[in-house]
Amino acid sequence: MSKSFDVVVIGAGPGGYIAAIRAAQLGMNVACIDEWKNDKGGPAPGGTCTNVGCIPSKALLQSSEHYEQARLHFAEHGITARDVKMDVATMVGRKNEVVKQNNDGILYLFKKNKVTFFHGRGSFVKAVDGGYEIKVAGKTEETLVAKQVIVATGSSPRELPGAPFDEENILSNDGALRIPAVPKRLALIGSGVIGLEMGSVWRRVGAEVTVLEALPTFLGAVDEQVAREAKKAFDKQGLKIALGVKISEVKSGKKGVSIAYANAKGEAQKLDVDKVIVSIGRVPNTQGLNAEAVGLKLSDRGQVEVDELCRTNLPGVWAVGDVVRGPMLAHKAEEEGVAVAERMAGQHGHVNFNTIPWVIYTSPEIAWVGKTEQQLKAEGVKYKAGSFPFMANGRARALGDTTGFVKMLADAATDEILGVHIVGPMASELIAEAAVAMEFKASSEDIARICHAHPTLGESMKEAALAVDKRTLNF
Amino acid sequence: MSKSFDVVVIGAGPGGYIAAIRAAQLGMNVACIDEWKNDKGGPAPGGTCTNVGCIPSKALLQSSEHYEQARLHFAEHGITARDVKMDVATMVGRKNEVVKQNNDGILYLFKKNKVTFFHGRGSFVKAVDGGYEIKVAGKTEETLVAKQVIVATGSSPRELPGAPFDEENILSNDGALRIPAVPKRLALIGSGVIGLEMGSVWRRVGAEVTVLEALPTFLGAVDEQVAREAKKAFDKQGLKIALGVKISEVKSGKKGVSIAYANAKGEAQKLDVDKVIVSIGRVPNTQGLNAEAVGLKLSDRGQVEVDELCRTNLPGVWAVGDVVRGPMLAHKAEEEGVAVAERMAGQHGHVNFNTIPWVIYTSPEIAWVGKTEQQLKAEGVKYKAGSFPFMANGRARALGDTTGFVKMLADAATDEILGVHIVGPMASELIAEAAVAMEFKASSEDIARICHAHPTLGESMKEAALAVDKRTLNF
Repeated sequence: MSKSFDVVVIGAGPGGYIAAIRAAQLGMNVACIDEWKNDKGGPAPGGTCTNVGCIPSKALLQSSEHYEQARLHFAEHGITARDVKMDVATMVGRKNEVVKQNNDGILYLFKKNKVTFFHGRGSFVKAVDGGYEIKVAGKTEETLVAKQVIVATGSSPRELPGAPFDEENILSNDGALRIPAVPKRLALIGSGVIGLEMGSVWRRVGAEVTVLEALPTFLGAVDEQVAREAKKAFDKQGLKIALGVKISEVKSGKKGVSIAYANAKGEAQKLDVDKVIVSIGRVPNTQGLNAEAVGLKLSDRGQVEVDELCRTNLPGVWAVGDVVRGPMLAHKAEEEGVAVAERMAGQHGHVNFNTIPWVIYTSPEIAWVGKTEQQLKAEGVKYKAGSFPFMANGRARALGDTTGFVKMLADAATDEILGVHIVGPMASELIAEAAVAMEFKASSEDIARICHAHPTLGESMKEAALAVDKRTLNF
Repeated sequence: MSKSFDVVVIGAGPGGYIAAIRAAQLGMNVACIDEWKNDKGGPAPGGTCTNVGCIPSKALLQSSEHYEQARLHFAEHGITARDVKMDVATMVGRKNEVVKQNNDGILYLFKKNKVTFFHGRGSFVKAVDGGYEIKVAGKTEETLVAKQVIVATGSSPRELPGAPFDEENILSNDGALRIPAVPKRLALIGSGVIGLEMGSVWRRVGAEVTVLEALPTFLGAVDEQVAREAKKAFDKQGLKIALGVKISEVKSGKKGVSIAYANAKGEAQKLDVDKVIVSIGRVPNTQGLNAEAVGLKLSDRGQVEVDELCRTNLPGVWAVGDVVRGPMLAHKAEEEGVAVAERMAGQHGHVNFNTIPWVIYTSPEIAWVGKTEQQLKAEGVKYKAGSFPFMANGRARALGDTTGFVKMLADAATDEILGVHIVGPMASELIAEAAVAMEFKASSEDIARICHAHPTLGESMKEAALAVDKRTLNF
């Protein structure tokens, strides 16, 4: 007999598990289906983010950051150590443990919030009276009936034509997170975020890393000034970055990978590496969802088509996260998940796309919210810009990391903050203040007049705001 | 002949130098006088904060934090190293270099902003027509005439009666920052902020640290729940903390310092240590200011008396920072400095004392803004509390530091945020968001509904806000 639920969520990534919890909090009877397996075949909810994305990459970044500090910076602090070595197996093992804590945490949250979890692949069977029949294909097969459905199936890494992932030599984010030993030479094809983060990790522990990017600009979505500053830092770290390249062939063999490409001048080049990480974007996961059985409309790009409220073409069927339009960010998926759950409960969940922060966890970290300078120019918006370098910040000097700056963009007439762009230490954490300020439609003068603790990196936000009015105090 | 200025600022600490720069930006002809000397006898503007406070302590905290990571936590990351040692001279030398960068930075800012700097001690001579005569006693003596004066002379560490600072064995914050070798046994008398921070530094590099605090409670100004969590962490680190003690004698000799005291039960105790840091508060610096020559009114506690606008009893004489009422915090002094400069220019500078953040840079860091729970109780304010542990935060797990929590207090009726209290990783930086939110009179629901980047520690702020409404998503 089929089990009935008010809501069935397909996918337990950040969009799905959060939607399930919020719906349950609002009194609905909720099931969540997820097929991700841990190495023992058990459930591993959390999706790409928890299993092969945000969380494990941050664990490796932290370990490799410690290693880099020890190798390059301990001497200036007065710390001496001999034979500093990184054991990759332990580093990766710790990362796996962090991932497991997060998987287990989500299972605990499901229990606590009375969400019924099913381990397997969820797919549509058919529309039924007052809802949809959903199949769970796992160790055992289950049939659920849902009054409403949330599709939160996420996305998968895009393959390079002719060079499918083998996760041995040609790696997606998944394989990049579990390379068993430091590769001597590593190539990144594409400068996608996860690729760059993984490039940072493996470079720090000793790999020689080359980035081959098809576009003529580096980090195209990032504010140009920030992208230049980041590139300067990456160059200094020894990351080789080739822009405007055209990959012609990627050949994987016993000895590694051979990449043939044309450089920006059109000259034929060859690069032999041990491993290559392909980071050229992600595709929405709709294969196997059996969307056609219920007539769920997909876009030409394979996304589930939704309106601004995450409603699909089918009554009672919603979709959130990477599988729909908008940035592929865990916290965007979460916001949509909460909003959909609240809409199902008759509330007015809202997602403000303009204040969703972006973070790239390279070293230096990059984070921003709102518009870039190039966007404002393209839109013909008149703006004022102010920036403040971490070089002039006391805390940054004390930390020993003065790379980068905070830059604020404000409307020329109203002074409302239109964008904040950070490259430098703890950018990921500093951006929160800017998102809150923008939600309150703060002016740059507001931030300039708010007391910021001394000595903190956050004072650079205040100074960037002062810089908009050309009156920095400490620069 | 005397030199005339629109404004003379006495003291180039955070209150003074910022006031001088802001006044100059507003078109006034400004001088700033400061007597602090570097080790070559040259000027060292920046006051306690730059020379023997915030900045050097953060430099030492960073170095000792790296050392602690290497000793205790590298193994879990897979990093091995042999013979990890701290060379205290190099650590202190780096700290001195960071201080020098800040000193030089302020001198540069004075030049850039056309503030005339005088190196020496500033004091009142007499009131003159349309202003005040101010003497600078340095290598050479100068006489200045100022239409308006800002007193920003700061504060000094309070001595223990009968045990004056010798900066060899009995140390103030000054001596605590330049101990030449790790003391085997170190005592802190008083649990003042700088004492605790220095205790953290020297404990990490190997000292056995005992804190003797006269009050029956630890960190009395801090939210009680936060103080308990911090004490738990300090206990775990091996910091010995004795509360409710009464010091009877502190005897400094060749072999170190012998401290006689009564414990909380009134039992006589003796503690022999190599060095002792006395951290029992600070006294305003008005000696040598010659306040009486102009009739500048001081309070019973030796502070320059000011109203809420930092006006003294004398027309055209203002005072800011540690030398007046209010918290002895660098950023509070800065805010007052800016506000006074703006008031002198006919503007309406404003300092909101309720949104001044507090930070204690121990490990774990402690930071808060607004009211503590015990304050709200004492004031009879009805409130809701929500907290979220870093243990349940993905970034904290990835960092490997899950100590502590974020706690939010909101008005029971209006939901306006009344206080935010953080103990844990990067608390100092996370608090900025809370200060901005409180300036905008945000409700806890506002923060709960604002998108926070994943994975960041800052998500704990959002979750604490959700906790106020008893609907955390990740705990």
